[in-house]
Amino acid sequence: MCRWMAYAGPSIYLENLLFQQKNSLISQSLKATKSAYVTNGDGFGVAWYGKRDKPGLFKDVLPAWNDENLRELSQHIESSLFLAHVRAATGTSVSRANCHPYTYKNWSFMHNGMIGDWQINRRDIESMISKDLYHFRHGTTDSEALFLLALTEGLESDPIIGISRAITKVIEVMKLNGSVNPLRISAALSDGQSIWAFRFSSDKQSPSLYYGTPDTHTNMDGHSVSTIASEPFDDGEDGNWAGVCEDSVLHWMNGHVSLHAFDPA
Amino acid sequence: MCRWMAYAGPSIYLENLLFQQKNSLISQSLKATKSAYVTNGDGFGVAWYGKRDKPGLFKDVLPAWNDENLRELSQHIESSLFLAHVRAATGTSVSRANCHPYTYKNWSFMHNGMIGDWQINRRDIESMISKDLYHFRHGTTDSEALFLLALTEGLESDPIIGISRAITKVIEVMKLNGSVNPLRISAALSDGQSIWAFRFSSDKQSPSLYYGTPDTHTNMDGHSVSTIASEPFDDGEDGNWAGVCEDSVLHWMNGHVSLHAFDPA
Amino acid sequence: MCRWMAYAGPSIYLENLLFQQKNSLISQSLKATKSAYVTNGDGFGVAWYGKRDKPGLFKDVLPAWNDENLRELSQHIESSLFLAHVRAATGTSVSRANCHPYTYKNWSFMHNGMIGDWQINRRDIESMISKDLYHFRHGTTDSEALFLLALTEGLESDPIIGISRAITKVIEVMKLNGSVNPLRISAALSDGQSIWAFRFSSDKQSPSLYYGTPDTHTNMDGHSVSTIASEPFDDGEDGNWAGVCEDSVLHWMNGHVSLHAFDPA
Amino acid sequence: MCRWMAYAGPSIYLENLLFQQKNSLISQSLKATKSAYVTNGDGFGVAWYGKRDKPGLFKDVLPAWNDENLRELSQHIESSLFLAHVRAATGTSVSRANCHPYTYKNWSFMHNGMIGDWQINRRDIESMISKDLYHFRHGTTDSEALFLLALTEGLESDPIIGISRAITKVIEVMKLNGSVNPLRISAALSDGQSIWAFRFSSDKQSPSLYYGTPDTHTNMDGHSVSTIASEPFDDGEDGNWAGVCEDSVLHWMNGHVSLHAFDPA
Repeated sequence: MCRWMAYAGPSIYLENLLFQQKNSLISQSLKATKSAYVTNGDGFGVAWYGKRDKPGLFKDVLPAWNDENLRELSQHIESSLFLAHVRAATGTSVSRANCHPYTYKNWSFMHNGMIGDWQINRRDIESMISKDLYHFRHGTTDSEALFLLALTEGLESDPIIGISRAITKVIEVMKLNGSVNPLRISAALSDGQSIWAFRFSSDKQSPSLYYGTPDTHTNMDGHSVSTIASEPFDDGEDGNWAGVCEDSVLHWMNGHVSLHAFDPA
Repeated sequence: MCRWMAYAGPSIYLENLLFQQKNSLISQSLKATKSAYVTNGDGFGVAWYGKRDKPGLFKDVLPAWNDENLRELSQHIESSLFLAHVRAATGTSVSRANCHPYTYKNWSFMHNGMIGDWQINRRDIESMISKDLYHFRHGTTDSEALFLLALTEGLESDPIIGISRAITKVIEVMKLNGSVNPLRISAALSDGQSIWAFRFSSDKQSPSLYYGTPDTHTNMDGHSVSTIASEPFDDGEDGNWAGVCEDSVLHWMNGHVSLHAFDPA
Repeated sequence: MCRWMAYAGPSIYLENLLFQQKNSLISQSLKATKSAYVTNGDGFGVAWYGKRDKPGLFKDVLPAWNDENLRELSQHIESSLFLAHVRAATGTSVSRANCHPYTYKNWSFMHNGMIGDWQINRRDIESMISKDLYHFRHGTTDSEALFLLALTEGLESDPIIGISRAITKVIEVMKLNGSVNPLRISAALSDGQSIWAFRFSSDKQSPSLYYGTPDTHTNMDGHSVSTIASEPFDDGEDGNWAGVCEDSVLHWMNGHVSLHAFDPA
Repeated sequence: MCRWMAYAGPSIYLENLLFQQKNSLISQSLKATKSAYVTNGDGFGVAWYGKRDKPGLFKDVLPAWNDENLRELSQHIESSLFLAHVRAATGTSVSRANCHPYTYKNWSFMHNGMIGDWQINRRDIESMISKDLYHFRHGTTDSEALFLLALTEGLESDPIIGISRAITKVIEVMKLNGSVNPLRISAALSDGQSIWAFRFSSDKQSPSLYYGTPDTHTNMDGHSVSTIASEPFDDGEDGNWAGVCEDSVLHWMNGHVSLHAFDPA
């Protein structure tokens, strides 16, 4: 399990959201409040969009809370759309390649959750990744496999259909292999223009997901929803954050947010 | 702040105590129960005595709970006297050189606590380290400086006097510099034959320290006290562990333990 | 490309061969003499056999030449059979999981060479790994895939047949996918009792392979061949080392060595 | 010994100079051409100036040639003045804190060379660092100590005098301690507006230093000298680079370069 956040809005320094919040993502790396996995210290990653066609990517295996590079870079990198993730490894090794976000061309993806019984389902799921995409398989996580499978299933043309079909295929494999543990997804996807955030699970116990408007220390005129995250960045009592329901996809674009039912099964 | 353990007794695999205990040191790295610093994920270290004159030393910067090398080595290295430490960094950087234990010739040392206001006291304390020992200063922690100062003050001839004099000198420097924060020490020292464990602080709030007899999965005839640790390895209710008082030094040798008053001031 | 060594004989400290030779493996990590890849600084690994059923394993991503843990452990770990490897990454990422040796139960394996055009052949080769073995796929190298495929093909019953069949299958896949680059193998395999060393390539340009008797600072009565390595540990002029021919497998057991033709095609 | 480069001119992506040159700094990390230390694989660092008061800083311990983060960040970070360094450790440990550049407020500093017999001179040199600056001593290198000593000696008011006085003091200490090995310096310093590059040694064998105009893939009108580096980025035959003499300081400001004698002794 893990914690993540995605931001879109006026260009800000990453530190504004990664560090300068009461319950910032970095705080959550040391002490998450809405997860059974309190400690998310098995690496971290940031993907940010700037001037170039592809997002920048910075990942490392040390805990986010004391990584001097992350602190420095967050003070100097500005972005109007970025994704960040802190990891609690559950079965696969601690390596940069296993840290989220994962990127492909202009796309970035990160995930909190699991494909149940990954050990017995992995080969079948990996074999469904298209040959052209297979060499973008840099690590061994279920999350990266899900992303590459969604790309295989048409994510670039239609992100929601791509993710939906990938989930459907994963569930089929899990059934065939007699998985007893569920599929659980709280994930974010971006092409640099939009953010899609998915909350779905096979047992209706999806990981937590919120959207809200933290104080970014920046004028946010007309940007009513700027941040999607595993947990609110405040204590959740000020009404700045709202939960995302199970079986939903939240779509952010041009400062507007829309919520839709999402049911791949 | 940190957590540590020291063992002496029949030769055992390190994993017996580092991993195979309910509240093992590795468990404490993720969730300590007797410290304000619940997470001790800023690196770890082990010094073990074997056939050679000097102890072996293995340190790394990743959290102990998911380090595959630590798990592997603990399954294969046997020792009848070893020290192990998990770190929660408080102000100095996460690096191997800053991980405990520190070693010098046949000696090893590790520490949980702090020299208050290290930032303003550091130069004066480092300058008291003898010239011959100075190049053994590999990192920047207060703990390593304390060890090298104790060596300067005669630790090799008389460990208790060496540590005592070092503490006295540190307290003098702290007073001169107007430190407001206390000195707190829960430390272990070994020469490969004996273990000395110190509990002392300038404000009578020393970090926790216990000694006891965990199940090492080995016949421990006549070894009534085999382990000294920041926390009991069980839930503390079975009477296998006893606390060490403030201002004390515990001395383990040949299976016998003695407790003495320790008051450097 | 990479460099490696395998030793079998009287129990010695790893440092005797890893460090205390003129052209030791650690020297080769900084400056190999028989390879186009002079620098082998993308991580290292050691698998050593001792009292336990499985070999111990220590891998890390830093260059071997300055890794303090490797130096320390080599001074304290003794073994009568061990494998060690320094890596020059060629296309897959620098991570512990991608470092050699790879282990499975009592088996260990390491490789210098390549499966040509790995990028286009990878999916087909991975899909031939048996389902039971698939979750031992920790990294993304061609070498680990080759080992798991050999296990799939019966390596545990007959190591030479297992490796041979794996190579045959790999070559078939390479042909189907129109690979233009060759398969090249200089590899070592052990079950803790024997060592098998393979030298084979599809273009008769296999990586270098030698066997010989370095001075291990130990009485080696009756152990005429104790070390197999990518390069001699001396300057190669003293006649202590002999080259292994292409299309050969060298088998070491109980101090005796035998050389056999090896032609999987 | 090490290799470094400093750039000032139109804003460019770091990759233009770090990667996209024939003999780029990253090439030099694997295979330097003008140094006895061919391999500079013990970590790296970049300090770049942007919108904020202080430079950004990114350092890591892996070899520069295969670090995915360095590659990614170099593609996304733009700067009109930056310093970069690849390290060959000579006696002090491989850690982020020991990687160059070192920064203090708006200042950055990096060094190729050595204070001879650092082991016996270190304590005396460190004790000359002012108390206020002492806690910026994050590592244990001679280079960082030289920088902090220069700051102590007035570098902020007059960089050349600060460095000069620091060198004079270091030479005095070296004499007192009977050092037999020389002081050698090829160093760069910046405040974000100017770059000062120093070439000096006590034995007239200073490390190599050049300045020139590599193709930055950018219009460089009126910026005749844009880069100072340990080695030319081309094969040195096109006349785009000139060597800096011993006992010199090169000063770059506003696109103009001036060379002055520099003799601290």
